[in-house]
Amino acid sequence: MRISQLAERADVPVATVKYYLRVGLLPPGELTSATQATYDDGHVERLRLVRALIEVAGLSHVQVQAVLGVVDGDVDLFDALGTVHDALPPGVDDRSTQGRAAAVVDGLGWWAVPGCTAMRQLDQALDAAADAGLPVDEAYVGTYAEAALAVAEQEIAHMPRESREAALTYTAVGTVLYEPVLLALRRLAEAHVAHTETGGG
Amino acid sequence: MRISQLAERADVPVATVKYYLRVGLLPPGELTSATQATYDDGHVERLRLVRALIEVAGLSHVQVQAVLGVVDGDVDLFDALGTVHDALPPGVDDRSTQGRAAAVVDGLGWWAVPGCTAMRQLDQALDAAADAGLPVDEAYVGTYAEAALAVAEQEIAHMPRESREAALTYTAVGTVLYEPVLLALRRLAEAHVAHTETGGG
Repeated sequence: MRISQLAERADVPVATVKYYLRVGLLPPGELTSATQATYDDGHVERLRLVRALIEVAGLSHVQVQAVLGVVDGDVDLFDALGTVHDALPPGVDDRSTQGRAAAVVDGLGWWAVPGCTAMRQLDQALDAAADAGLPVDEAYVGTYAEAALAVAEQEIAHMPRESREAALTYTAVGTVLYEPVLLALRRLAEAHVAHTETGGG
Repeated sequence: MRISQLAERADVPVATVKYYLRVGLLPPGELTSATQATYDDGHVERLRLVRALIEVAGLSHVQVQAVLGVVDGDVDLFDALGTVHDALPPGVDDRSTQGRAAAVVDGLGWWAVPGCTAMRQLDQALDAAADAGLPVDEAYVGTYAEAALAVAEQEIAHMPRESREAALTYTAVGTVLYEPVLLALRRLAEAHVAHTETGGG
């Protein structure tokens, strides 16, 4: 397809596609003449990934390059999934924590990489909740964990297996794009439950 | 208690407490002499709320004032819950959407305020997922909704009822502080499920 069709299929302005090509976030098309190139479905998929990472996740170009490096690299799929996750926001700082995440993950019997970014995100998130006087005991956090597990099972079941790139793109895009879906639904669910309980208004 | 104890109990530097007092994010203590004031548990709770809104949610002082205005206002509790939610990030822009959220909420039989911020967040999130080629059908989104509902039921069940302010503080702080818990657990759950399925490494 031509660049205009590529842009249309990924819903990105042509000028932006040209920019991504120029800075190397999108691989060049196949030249069909001195001034024309043709693009394939792989370009559409890559363009959607880049767009989601930049526009939705708010990643810098350098961070996008890091994610693409993992997608295009030769680390095995499973390790690459973790690396992609770790490359996505929010970052973590190096403040010391109470280490609550390890106990949570152990209690659940989940496999996890000690000290990975998601573990540190959970450590910091649980400390912040505890500092504010909110419950972070095993039973309370367990409800979040069960909810997260149900969501994760569906996501991994839908992960495309036809190629390593497709699987990793789905993981990166899915992590970034379903997060706001889950958070918006949680707020709507809270309003619904509060309304049902109190009779509203 | 004295300002140093107040600062310690909310884990905020004394200089920051003085600053919040100066700009009116924290109400003044009761004067015990010309240069000394005393503070109560209400100050600790308010300080934790302000700290969570600024440090964790990243709200500006103007946005914090808006949330505090709702907490301190006389709107009934149920309407105030919605207003607090709407005042928290992420904001929504006014781009037009496919209006998928209304269908989702209808399908679930949830009560919701049409056009509220959370509905628009869901509209925009579902459009972004659909644009990236991710599933947004009723069954797929339903899994997120069930997870969100389980979490919301626990949260509302734990909402303190002894005062309007305590209930609203809990809602605001809980919304902001449990979001990162849920998201970190989702990433850990994905790693766990992927590991279980593939045998890892």
